[in-house]
Amino acid sequence: MPKRISDAEYRTRFFDDLVVGERFESYWSRIDADEIVRFASEFDPQIQHLDEEGAKASRFGGLIASGAHTFALWARLNIEVNGDVAWIAGVGFEHFRLPNPLRAGVDFQARSELLAARVSGSDPTRGVTTHLHSLWTRDGLCLFTAESIALVERRAN
Amino acid sequence: MPKRISDAEYRTRFFDDLVVGERFESYWSRIDADEIVRFASEFDPQIQHLDEEGAKASRFGGLIASGAHTFALWARLNIEVNGDVAWIAGVGFEHFRLPNPLRAGVDFQARSELLAARVSGSDPTRGVTTHLHSLWTRDGLCLFTAESIALVERRAN
Repeated sequence: MPKRISDAEYRTRFFDDLVVGERFESYWSRIDADEIVRFASEFDPQIQHLDEEGAKASRFGGLIASGAHTFALWARLNIEVNGDVAWIAGVGFEHFRLPNPLRAGVDFQARSELLAARVSGSDPTRGVTTHLHSLWTRDGLCLFTAESIALVERRAN
Repeated sequence: MPKRISDAEYRTRFFDDLVVGERFESYWSRIDADEIVRFASEFDPQIQHLDEEGAKASRFGGLIASGAHTFALWARLNIEVNGDVAWIAGVGFEHFRLPNPLRAGVDFQARSELLAARVSGSDPTRGVTTHLHSLWTRDGLCLFTAESIALVERRAN
């Protein structure tokens, strides 16, 4: 009798299914000034994230999202982009940059590219991936970029 | 007549006031399961962040905070630790790691150490700093670590 494959397995992309060079883009998203202020009030209470008038007088010339908020918004879009991958755990990021601040009412999109993939030397049931992740505006402004290293399950044979 | 120094200048630590090797610790903080679920519902809707029962069945053995949540909580504590520094802007992070997950009801503390500081070559009115940032539990478990590069204002002479 052939091995039953569950719906979950059909939907999940294992390490062995990933192709170096594969690229994905998320839908376009957007936040308003209230969301910027609400997040910053809880996590990053600095004037450029809290108050439009105060932010105008700052070097940023207007309200900008906390970098932690930009990162959280990327995380949400990355679930759309790479949520079907059989992640074990993220190891971390290198070259984590926030080159331009996110402002209210500006559309942004997550993009990802699989830069490298190798079977783990210490545990050949796992794969190790390197992705280039980024967040862009329609005007081509990069808001976030980082290289992530992560562990991914291999397909059971 | 001597130059007047405003209260803000008294309170602010400029690049020239920073001492390589200086270390700071924040107060101890803590979050509950509701906060983990609320953050994840908005930014990182994965089972290990959303549902105690589902998370118990996962490889994590229980509810854990989203990495984006852990990072945002670090940002909040870092304002206490380094909020008096005359930051111009953060450049980014290297070696961004989340070696252990944050769980509900566990005390955590931010720590920072100034690893390096130099005057900017391209703009000598600015300083460039490298900090080692981290988040720890009372049991000595590291939840987050990263090296940040940032620009800091020099004291006007």
